[in-house]
Amino acid sequence: RIDGDRLWDSLMEMAQIGPGIAGGNNRQTLTDEDAEGRALFQKWCEDAGCTMGVDEIGNMFARREGTDPDALPVYVGSHLDTQPTGGKFDGVLGVLGGLEILRSLNDLGIKTKHPIVVTNWTNEEGTRFAPAMLASGVFAGKHDLQWAYDREDSKGKRFGDELERIGWKGSEPVGDRKMHAFFELHIEQGPILEAEGKDIGVVTHGQGLRWIECTVTGKESHTGSTPMHMRKNAGRGLALITELVHEIAMKNQPNAVGAIGHIDVYPNSRNIIPGKVVCTVDLRTHLLDKLNAMVDEFMDRAPKLCEEIGVTFDAHIVGQFDPPAFDETCVTAIRDAAERLGYSHMNIVSGAGHDACWINDVAPTAMVMCPCVGGLSHNEAEEISKDWAAAGTDVLFHAVVETAEI
Amino acid sequence: RIDGDRLWDSLMEMAQIGPGIAGGNNRQTLTDEDAEGRALFQKWCEDAGCTMGVDEIGNMFARREGTDPDALPVYVGSHLDTQPTGGKFDGVLGVLGGLEILRSLNDLGIKTKHPIVVTNWTNEEGTRFAPAMLASGVFAGKHDLQWAYDREDSKGKRFGDELERIGWKGSEPVGDRKMHAFFELHIEQGPILEAEGKDIGVVTHGQGLRWIECTVTGKESHTGSTPMHMRKNAGRGLALITELVHEIAMKNQPNAVGAIGHIDVYPNSRNIIPGKVVCTVDLRTHLLDKLNAMVDEFMDRAPKLCEEIGVTFDAHIVGQFDPPAFDETCVTAIRDAAERLGYSHMNIVSGAGHDACWINDVAPTAMVMCPCVGGLSHNEAEEISKDWAAAGTDVLFHAVVETAEI
Ligand SMILES: NC(=O)NCCC(=O)O
Ligand SMILES: NC(=O)NCCC(=O)O
Repeated sequence: RIDGDRLWDSLMEMAQIGPGIAGGNNRQTLTDEDAEGRALFQKWCEDAGCTMGVDEIGNMFARREGTDPDALPVYVGSHLDTQPTGGKFDGVLGVLGGLEILRSLNDLGIKTKHPIVVTNWTNEEGTRFAPAMLASGVFAGKHDLQWAYDREDSKGKRFGDELERIGWKGSEPVGDRKMHAFFELHIEQGPILEAEGKDIGVVTHGQGLRWIECTVTGKESHTGSTPMHMRKNAGRGLALITELVHEIAMKNQPNAVGAIGHIDVYPNSRNIIPGKVVCTVDLRTHLLDKLNAMVDEFMDRAPKLCEEIGVTFDAHIVGQFDPPAFDETCVTAIRDAAERLGYSHMNIVSGAGHDACWINDVAPTAMVMCPCVGGLSHNEAEEISKDWAAAGTDVLFHAVVETAEI
Repeated sequence: RIDGDRLWDSLMEMAQIGPGIAGGNNRQTLTDEDAEGRALFQKWCEDAGCTMGVDEIGNMFARREGTDPDALPVYVGSHLDTQPTGGKFDGVLGVLGGLEILRSLNDLGIKTKHPIVVTNWTNEEGTRFAPAMLASGVFAGKHDLQWAYDREDSKGKRFGDELERIGWKGSEPVGDRKMHAFFELHIEQGPILEAEGKDIGVVTHGQGLRWIECTVTGKESHTGSTPMHMRKNAGRGLALITELVHEIAMKNQPNAVGAIGHIDVYPNSRNIIPGKVVCTVDLRTHLLDKLNAMVDEFMDRAPKLCEEIGVTFDAHIVGQFDPPAFDETCVTAIRDAAERLGYSHMNIVSGAGHDACWINDVAPTAMVMCPCVGGLSHNEAEEISKDWAAAGTDVLFHAVVETAEI
């Protein structure tokens, strides 16, 4: 078993970096706080006897050698970046859970045949730079490196420039590493495990996602002196598509979701009718056909709704992944570990996207989930118990060690 | 007649300060650009032989002496601050039109019995610091000076601190000045004069306004892993009240307007369901009872709509004025001047609020309007012709000189 107290202490120490305003974290990707969190992780890994590799997109790889020089490493990890108002566990548990495995192996004096590499993937959240899971996507060959460097945040800062600025642009080519397998531990970020009273979620599939960036264009004009019939109010376009997204998600129940989380209104003045709204629609479900049908319906109806009120609608996809099905051998390793350790468990579909969804395309991959209180995530109040963290990490430990072979 | 070319040159020179990104201006109140515009206006006034007074809220008063030491001054003016994406004429025409009157009187060697004072009122727009017409409101006793100082912009900067920072906090008590009359020239900011082919609008009344700042509170959570039935999406609350405001304005036609121009979404991340939306509703009409009924209906229905979708609604008024009726003698002076000068004219209700609406409560007041292209204002593309500017200023000139007596 891993050391649950040590794991918890590390989680709490990492949470000191980039504290939020309500008990959580704001350690967004490629900020000074991200750099500080990375440095702490590196120190911990080196203290545990690992060497650290960093690739050209800032992905970090802490390696513990195996006994067989020809064996490919087993990778384990997640991300240290957070939402602007994020929790202490989303991503972080998967990275520090990986570190805890190394520490436990050291304590127990266990050598594995395959090396074990603990990874911190850059920019999983995608809030500052869309899309999410950007660096694992480049690693898996989904995106071009240069394209990733050219992503811009809302202030017009380039991903590539910010990566250099914080000093974490490595020299290793992205995606060159070959993996024996990849495992990711993550909090569920949904309510199911807690409601079902299960310690462990064995993730068999994930939801697919489409992020659709929409621009509604009306005409800026005075709220007081522009007669109603002459208005082109882009804010009304936003209202109509907000409800359209909700309607489409509702009629594709069960297991479909949709919302608009990002909204920028221009020029955003109390006495100016909005001339432009830029917003991002997030649509998800675990069935590819259904996902595509939801997107089609949105793309068909949104322009018509906008046209009816005299505003125009443009949209393009800024993030997407299809529903992944994880590797059966790896999934079984997780289920068996949970069973062997006596933890209650169930199969589950991941509601969120994860780095594992991309890595699944280039290596045998699986995920283990632990519950979180009230299903709440992407909120500073995100909470898990020390026991849940320990149980998830125990299962990860056993699945990883079994796959890496003693 | 005034010198239309000189007026136009001054308008264009002022527009160099705080240029926008699309041909207009961004010279928001209490910014460095505001300070620069004020300094230019002061220099011009001093070159025209005036003395400049500045009160504790930054209102500027350029005085040309009269021949009767006991006569109260005739005031004329408007504002030099602009919207973040504002035009070159909204407010500026009224201030520089006043300056042109002084220059023309100098050219003609005319002395008036009453002094003439050209005024630049601080923070008319109200975008950076709500409410609009803040400093004329303090002058007219509508707001407390300390309350005005405590207004904060969206970055938490205090009005009082910013006024000191830019160096335009004067020592004269606000509102001590007594006026013989007040005249304001302004562009219409609506489409009526142009559509009717009139040079001059004789403003008899104004619309009343209510700014209602609303906070819709839901629960931040993950867009992917939060099931639809567990969501509390504050963005949907925004959608419903956006359409409610539109509906209320439409059913109070003719002559009622309503929209939401200011919207802030928290935390504004693509994969977080909005936990909070703060926005400001702008409702107006020229009939007080109707205005109050519109507000009542909104305040009654908005919380219910939000409750139905599981989010909460709070609101309070952050700006208001009742529909003003201007002084008959002053209005007649404007109508007579237009008639005498041979300009086509019509009575008109001001759609926007103006400093004159507050000053109307403490001095005999009237306004003259000139057309603007396509009725467009609060837009960088706001445009007027040189002839329209000259005609409006001519009428202002004659009304002011008649009231100030030669
Ligand atoms: N786990 C997680 O929140 N990932 C971000 C990508 C997504 O929105 O699903
Ligand atoms: N004239 C003008 O735009 N004033 C600002 C106050 C208002 O919104 O009416």
